[in-house]
Amino acid sequence: MTTQRDRAYVHGYSRREAKRLLDQAGVLTGLLHHDTGYPPGSLVLEAGCGIGAQTVTLAEKSPGALITSLDLSRSSLLLAEVRAREAGIRGVTFLRGDIDALPFADGSFDHVFVCFVLEHLPDPVSALACLRRVLKPGGTITVIEGDHGSAYFSPDSEAAGKAIDCLVALQKEKGGNALIGRELYPILSRAEFLDVAVSPRMVYVDASHPELVEGFTKQTFTAMVEGVREEALGQGLIEKTEWDQGIRDLYRTCEPDGTFCYTFFKGTGVKRLTPPRGRTRRRGPGAR
Amino acid sequence: MTTQRDRAYVHGYSRREAKRLLDQAGVLTGLLHHDTGYPPGSLVLEAGCGIGAQTVTLAEKSPGALITSLDLSRSSLLLAEVRAREAGIRGVTFLRGDIDALPFADGSFDHVFVCFVLEHLPDPVSALACLRRVLKPGGTITVIEGDHGSAYFSPDSEAAGKAIDCLVALQKEKGGNALIGRELYPILSRAEFLDVAVSPRMVYVDASHPELVEGFTKQTFTAMVEGVREEALGQGLIEKTEWDQGIRDLYRTCEPDGTFCYTFFKGTGVKRLTPPRGRTRRRGPGAR
Repeated sequence: MTTQRDRAYVHGYSRREAKRLLDQAGVLTGLLHHDTGYPPGSLVLEAGCGIGAQTVTLAEKSPGALITSLDLSRSSLLLAEVRAREAGIRGVTFLRGDIDALPFADGSFDHVFVCFVLEHLPDPVSALACLRRVLKPGGTITVIEGDHGSAYFSPDSEAAGKAIDCLVALQKEKGGNALIGRELYPILSRAEFLDVAVSPRMVYVDASHPELVEGFTKQTFTAMVEGVREEALGQGLIEKTEWDQGIRDLYRTCEPDGTFCYTFFKGTGVKRLTPPRGRTRRRGPGAR
Repeated sequence: MTTQRDRAYVHGYSRREAKRLLDQAGVLTGLLHHDTGYPPGSLVLEAGCGIGAQTVTLAEKSPGALITSLDLSRSSLLLAEVRAREAGIRGVTFLRGDIDALPFADGSFDHVFVCFVLEHLPDPVSALACLRRVLKPGGTITVIEGDHGSAYFSPDSEAAGKAIDCLVALQKEKGGNALIGRELYPILSRAEFLDVAVSPRMVYVDASHPELVEGFTKQTFTAMVEGVREEALGQGLIEKTEWDQGIRDLYRTCEPDGTFCYTFFKGTGVKRLTPPRGRTRRRGPGAR
């Protein structure tokens, strides 16, 4: 079944995309997750787990935590379950559901974890407010997002920049925001989280890191851009010759004298212990 | 006296620029220099010390090292000397000289340190080769450079991007390269240094870091862009209204919901112990 939301995922649901997501998760585990981990017994919601690219890491980093991994796509959930089983992961409950209509009571979780999800949502502040509702007072949220505007490289290339801009435009057209990483601080603040702290996680790639050249520049980033080729050309966002040049130039940065930079952002916030002043409903004499 | 090279320094030599350089040095000391430091007794060349914005830190981080700080501008050297004296720094020798014609014998130094200099030179590989000459075999070079193409922010702004592009264009016109940070790895490799290692030093600014909002986004980066206003408008690189909008938008990123990102790059390399094969001159029977 393909839902409206399924179609809104700019990268699609192909097998190649699944491989890309897993490559990305493997290469970036240390960078993104060295400080991810929840105590035994804590109740954790992974909202928007997709094919489970981060779920196994999350579970491995949090032995004894009770993780609920939610996604809207049934086919992705099936892949995520298989992947978790193959990795010998227990203690993760997979559940179909929508972030905007979470099937949980208020204050159900100690921690919420959201990775590469907000970038695809039309109203991330509202989504965060929904996630805040199911957090216990004092509970934490962790958000990880990329920012395609953070990509730069050597040799520099206008065509490659334009190809990347196509992906940004297509994601925007679907209601997403591929430049959301830089906005995590204001977004978490607007969603009324406290103690908001954001740290950049920069991927810097040169020939002395061949695993990043292959695993990040080629298999993650360039593969992601290439994934929207048909749509970008079909919509006339770019000329075919310029697109092809842009993709060639991205591969060119993988040569021994090339470099590539990209930054992810990881943000955390805390749900306040008491309701904000002015929002508490005062019951007057006539109130029911 | 204003030399040809003096005029080629895109940021000029005003008092405001001197303040900007010192603000920058203060705010960035930890980020750029936490791993800078040379052992007592080692001979260190700081090439292109300017007004000594980094010299005091370098000396403080390397007690007992014998530092020679070189610059082409006599007026900058005078300011650097005063600054070092006021900071109670001893053991630094200030010397006027050109990187392309270093007044030192081969192998004079254990370490060379170059900060915010290569970006202003027309041929950084050749400059690095000159610096390699005065290093002892096995000696190290450390290079720190920014990259203006690494600047992005929220709210995003096309006008601000165009104002930054003016600075990049003016620096290029003077023979420099404001996007050199991302190129340190290939440049150091081309200059035949070994064990080249480059690490990005990203400055991420949001309202939870008021000292960076003031000291970096405003006083360092935006002040630097504002510094080329007359030249950019005079050359017609940008319309006045767009320039003013761009500068306003850079200040806008300093509001509580704004963010700002910029990345410096620090690279190191080692001078090989023996001359490269094929470059050793074989003396034939008839050679003198």
